[in-house]
Amino acid sequence: MSKILRVNMTDLTAAYEDVPEKYKLMGGRWLTSSIVADEVEPTCHPLGPNNKVVLAPGIVSGTDAPSSGRISVGGKSPLTGTIKESNAGTPFSQHLARLGIKAVVVEGFPKEKGKFWLLRVDKDGAEFLPADEYVGQGLYEAYPALFDRFGKKAAIMGIGVGGEMKMAMAGVCFNDIDGRPSRYSGRGGMGAVLGSKGLKFIVTDDTGGPGVDIADKDLFNTGRKKLTEALRTHDVTKKGGALNTYGTAVLINILNEAGGLPTRNFSSGYFEGASKISGEAIAETIKQRGGAGKMGHPCHPECIIQCSNVWPYPDGTEHSSVQEYESVWAFGANCGIDDLDVTGELIRLCNDYGVDTIESGGTIAVAMEGGLAEFGDGQKAIELMHEIDKGTPLGRILGQGAAFTGRALGVIRVPGVKGQNMPAYSPRAVKGIGVTYITNPQGADHTIGYTIAPEILSVGGKADPLTPEGKAELSRNFQIATAFIDSTGYCLFIAFAILDIPEGFEGMVESCAGLLGTNWTADDVTRIGKEILKKERAFNEAAGFTKADDRPPEFMRYEPLPPHNQIWDVPDEALDSVWEF
Amino acid sequence: MSKILRVNMTDLTAAYEDVPEKYKLMGGRWLTSSIVADEVEPTCHPLGPNNKVVLAPGIVSGTDAPSSGRISVGGKSPLTGTIKESNAGTPFSQHLARLGIKAVVVEGFPKEKGKFWLLRVDKDGAEFLPADEYVGQGLYEAYPALFDRFGKKAAIMGIGVGGEMKMAMAGVCFNDIDGRPSRYSGRGGMGAVLGSKGLKFIVTDDTGGPGVDIADKDLFNTGRKKLTEALRTHDVTKKGGALNTYGTAVLINILNEAGGLPTRNFSSGYFEGASKISGEAIAETIKQRGGAGKMGHPCHPECIIQCSNVWPYPDGTEHSSVQEYESVWAFGANCGIDDLDVTGELIRLCNDYGVDTIESGGTIAVAMEGGLAEFGDGQKAIELMHEIDKGTPLGRILGQGAAFTGRALGVIRVPGVKGQNMPAYSPRAVKGIGVTYITNPQGADHTIGYTIAPEILSVGGKADPLTPEGKAELSRNFQIATAFIDSTGYCLFIAFAILDIPEGFEGMVESCAGLLGTNWTADDVTRIGKEILKKERAFNEAAGFTKADDRPPEFMRYEPLPPHNQIWDVPDEALDSVWEF
Repeated sequence: MSKILRVNMTDLTAAYEDVPEKYKLMGGRWLTSSIVADEVEPTCHPLGPNNKVVLAPGIVSGTDAPSSGRISVGGKSPLTGTIKESNAGTPFSQHLARLGIKAVVVEGFPKEKGKFWLLRVDKDGAEFLPADEYVGQGLYEAYPALFDRFGKKAAIMGIGVGGEMKMAMAGVCFNDIDGRPSRYSGRGGMGAVLGSKGLKFIVTDDTGGPGVDIADKDLFNTGRKKLTEALRTHDVTKKGGALNTYGTAVLINILNEAGGLPTRNFSSGYFEGASKISGEAIAETIKQRGGAGKMGHPCHPECIIQCSNVWPYPDGTEHSSVQEYESVWAFGANCGIDDLDVTGELIRLCNDYGVDTIESGGTIAVAMEGGLAEFGDGQKAIELMHEIDKGTPLGRILGQGAAFTGRALGVIRVPGVKGQNMPAYSPRAVKGIGVTYITNPQGADHTIGYTIAPEILSVGGKADPLTPEGKAELSRNFQIATAFIDSTGYCLFIAFAILDIPEGFEGMVESCAGLLGTNWTADDVTRIGKEILKKERAFNEAAGFTKADDRPPEFMRYEPLPPHNQIWDVPDEALDSVWEF
Repeated sequence: MSKILRVNMTDLTAAYEDVPEKYKLMGGRWLTSSIVADEVEPTCHPLGPNNKVVLAPGIVSGTDAPSSGRISVGGKSPLTGTIKESNAGTPFSQHLARLGIKAVVVEGFPKEKGKFWLLRVDKDGAEFLPADEYVGQGLYEAYPALFDRFGKKAAIMGIGVGGEMKMAMAGVCFNDIDGRPSRYSGRGGMGAVLGSKGLKFIVTDDTGGPGVDIADKDLFNTGRKKLTEALRTHDVTKKGGALNTYGTAVLINILNEAGGLPTRNFSSGYFEGASKISGEAIAETIKQRGGAGKMGHPCHPECIIQCSNVWPYPDGTEHSSVQEYESVWAFGANCGIDDLDVTGELIRLCNDYGVDTIESGGTIAVAMEGGLAEFGDGQKAIELMHEIDKGTPLGRILGQGAAFTGRALGVIRVPGVKGQNMPAYSPRAVKGIGVTYITNPQGADHTIGYTIAPEILSVGGKADPLTPEGKAELSRNFQIATAFIDSTGYCLFIAFAILDIPEGFEGMVESCAGLLGTNWTADDVTRIGKEILKKERAFNEAAGFTKADDRPPEFMRYEPLPPHNQIWDVPDEALDSVWEF
């Protein structure tokens, strides 16, 4: 029987609790958002004693279901003030599941200021160890040291200096399949919440753990196979398909051609240097340089999409991982930088400091607009990131994210919603994703309702990106389905396959139903997705959010975006209608 | 006939418009809040093209009514995101009124970045002059230069470097009776809004102006005399009374004895060094030092209370003005500093840079808690203020106020409401003023419902400061009456006299009714006060504010405040009931 591991940072206790009946079918985002909604006072200070961080593997995490190693991290966000869930693909998720841990709830507040702890979890229990020796270190130094200390079979959750300094762009870091500190629940500053609680690492070892109970193995296996088959068939997700061959940065050229690649702090949708930072360029350079570089790399065992990569220095030695779309875009087009060695270094710094690449890139772009550097100046961008590590006053500004930096520098063009900067798709050129950014409960986020599929990729149907028509309904449907997927433990990228291949969708549902022993159908996907969204929305309303927070940054209403020269023209009523369900 | 002067910073035009019928009876806050509510989109960016700044003298400003030279400055606040009104006593108010200007509306957005303008207004009209030569200057340098250039009869509104840099603690500066840049509409960052628009100064000369129309001179004079008599009789406001003799800092010892003097960033209500920074100490030192020091100094002609002062250096030469209660507290007790020469210097720097003393002191205290200085280190406090002038990254943090600084430094104990730091009365020890801070539409502010009168001073009745009982009603009544007073042009300090002396209250109403030709009674005071509050509240609701924003900082709910060891215990329902009218 799975347990909840409750970690109290006031008393330094870690206790296993039975899972209440109401949580028994839940996993991932469904579970983190439910626990946060049940236990966290919505108006609490995100970095005070009454916030909590909840970590939960998905429903099928820990099994051999394909691409199922996602971990959800939830709490009240210091970046947005909303409820938050951010998920990552990592062996850590599989470890928790196989250790019989349905969720870890981190609560309380350290009695001793500036003291940090490591929680060691294995089949025998959980214990606290001092983590002071790792404080101030880069995670590229700390993670290898931890693997040396705890063994190669360990999995590690950690925060970097960003989290230690309670910066709102601090993410929660997890190891990848080779132990790199490169898989992030990056968005929303949950690393800062862990920092406020003094929890620096959780190190797991699932050796000898009870493993994952599967209620109906036949149904589970039927579903698993259908989904696997769909993933192996679809052009986007198959071996040798778009994601596997070029990584997610295959989108750079595609979005640029669509005029929707946000460039130089969202002042254009077209970047003249796009081809130099494209997925094609990444793949080609990795091939040319040889050595440690890799395309088609998995973030966790059981992943069959394998969209990750390892970027080499010109001499072939390993530089960083992952040059993926949103990260390359954030430091590339959005900062006017067309050099993959620069984006690779900036991504490496984010992983090392424990901060979100999307928020970091957005922040550097706002800083550039505020006069701290010229757009395109990669060296200066790297220097600005160093300030975060050093914790200088400038670093303290940047570390709080783009909206904060914009306010410090008097920059009006800050492309955020609810305090979180927009990712790599321009709302004025791709209206559906704009509706998702603006209306979802967690601030500007692309993964939470990825309408790019039909608007740009002709996956799951086809929608004109420029028209405001029908985008509320489109976003609503994507947000509902995504809330369910975020709860399964499956990677969101299964969506490409299951949107086009009905058997894949069935497989997703059947594998979850089989594991849990339910008779779920597609209707339950919708029901559960709606339940999750409503719960998150209710938290935000109690925290003081209203329709006025479901609005775009004002400048997008009056500044036309080249090359289409479109403004934001989805009516407010349409935005509000997203929540009519 | 009065006009509205509409100043467009996009086109650099200044045009006189007839006053619409609906505004004809309005003045001060009633008028600024009404124009802002009518013309400003509540969700606009406070520093973007769609915000406006409205300046309005009060109903009786410009006449010989006693202490009637208040000017209101309104707009959407970059500090709080709410509607804002902040008023100051200055000859500038009287100039506008005597020039027949009911309000100045500053709107638009500069085409040329970094360019600043001066608007010259006299009986012949308004014209723009370049102000670039004053940019970056301290206001102690600029104001004398402007008086040299435009003559000693001028009155000046200005912003300092804080406003130029669009800092959220930037106030709007007005000259005092001797031309000092020392009278501030300090709160809420309206100086930053003017900075975003590129308007650096308005210089008026009322010579030859049409003067103020008085509809019923007899009624006006009757009222004026009654109010004058009340002010000359009441112990607080009379010549040789508490305010005149010791200045507003007479409150330091009183609040300290009540355990309600916020000390070291609101971590105590008692400051062991209080007597050294008290009004008594100020008066005594000014007397001892001789020279330029003055007690009982008026901020504008017609003021008969004269609570201001001029602080001398030890050698008797002029140092700064004004050592008043909230400023001395902010830099004194709240920073653990017990040296009036230090508070005097910090106040001088605020005046010079154009920033709010209350927000500045609160910010330094949060910075001290965040480890940038020890509490009590005056020299370091001065150095921190210098950072603001220099516009360093640290200065950019501090210049955005206490909440922003707290976030940058990871400080949880930030005693603000709606982003504005609390003034000099501790809500846990004086509950009624806490209700005012928390529920009023403009962020933590003491002047907007000064329940200190009955809670501490036994003026207008007597209320136990420590009990939560009855405080919602008390605050509501004060907020309603104050909204009216803020519209009259009278100094809020008339409240002491009119709360205790019925004829004084009648005089206030009759002087306004006489000027306007209305038959107002006490009922109209209530009616108008309610109208103003409701208008402001509606703006905020449209901007996205809810009951969740009418809540105290969380730490006050769980941290008992010495010496009474009280937490905040006014129920949320009582807070919400303030708006039940």
